[in-house]
Amino acid sequence: MDERLTKQLRFACEIDKEKNIFRQTHLTGHGRRENDAEHAWHMAVMAYLLKEYSNEPVDIAKVMIMCLIHDIVEIDAGDTYAYDEEAKKTQKEREEKAKERIFSILPEEQKAELIAIFDEFEESKTAEAKFARAMDNLQPLILNDSNGGSDWREHGVSADKVYARQIRTKPGSEKLYEITDKIIKKHIELGNLKSE
Amino acid sequence: MDERLTKQLRFACEIDKEKNIFRQTHLTGHGRRENDAEHAWHMAVMAYLLKEYSNEPVDIAKVMIMCLIHDIVEIDAGDTYAYDEEAKKTQKEREEKAKERIFSILPEEQKAELIAIFDEFEESKTAEAKFARAMDNLQPLILNDSNGGSDWREHGVSADKVYARQIRTKPGSEKLYEITDKIIKKHIELGNLKSE
Repeated sequence: MDERLTKQLRFACEIDKEKNIFRQTHLTGHGRRENDAEHAWHMAVMAYLLKEYSNEPVDIAKVMIMCLIHDIVEIDAGDTYAYDEEAKKTQKEREEKAKERIFSILPEEQKAELIAIFDEFEESKTAEAKFARAMDNLQPLILNDSNGGSDWREHGVSADKVYARQIRTKPGSEKLYEITDKIIKKHIELGNLKSE
Repeated sequence: MDERLTKQLRFACEIDKEKNIFRQTHLTGHGRRENDAEHAWHMAVMAYLLKEYSNEPVDIAKVMIMCLIHDIVEIDAGDTYAYDEEAKKTQKEREEKAKERIFSILPEEQKAELIAIFDEFEESKTAEAKFARAMDNLQPLILNDSNGGSDWREHGVSADKVYARQIRTKPGSEKLYEITDKIIKKHIELGNLKSE
């Protein structure tokens, strides 16, 4: 087998580990916690279905691959809960190290391509990255909403923390931020989110 | 919230159930069985990475969404093991019924679009469908190979059965069929696949 294909298949095997990285979000029906691969799959399907709501036109292939790989670094760095301020302090450093190790399994130019896509998502400047970010917020929101906000209640999350995160949906989609805002307000009213 | 977006988000919630449909393939490192959402995620990333090996040029966005949704019907119809001849007799009927119910949650024209993509995969005639099929074969093959062929051993699968399935990689990618053939031959030699 040639060296290039060997590297590509080794990478394909390596990322299988993403199925063992569990998030704080629970599946619908108050199921178990979901893992990164499931989250990425769900985001990519949602991106395709909801692309009409992007503020700007997007290259949907780019958005989908961005959604699919954006959490690969967590294979080494672990999942950092969006509302865990301590863990967030070391997140960048842990993820940079992981990015270098994992993408280096690929042939050189594919390593560069995937790191560029990964960084584009992190920087959130392009239309594709902004829309992919909106999916990263909306996907756990609808699961949590379907479970009566239990993920927030369990962690005693406050409304301002949720807004600080979910506001990043707005640059990707004004329309999806509108519905996000309605869902958050409903959960404040129901007492599932603490409001000061 | 408008009716169109309500339907789209209801569909997004519904497909969450795909994370509970478990396949016969085990994760690398002799892990637990993988589920349909994980399998679809893995296939879509592999399609993007390996697209240079497609026999014909492909619209990669089309291939990715095809990979991502091709097992959605299993939410109702369940997973049918590739080498379970009894279950395969009723597979088509079960999956047709599921297809109608699940995609009907979407707005009418999106239902039609997704069913067309689903059917295109099933019919395996276009370049995109043929390459997506190759991913559907190659993804479990590399997991099983990494685990020393234990999925085949457990079910006492014979080499001709594996060939009958894996041959469908060829119309999508001659190159990936070459490596498939090498992997199968290795496992026959090791006694992990029964040969008559």
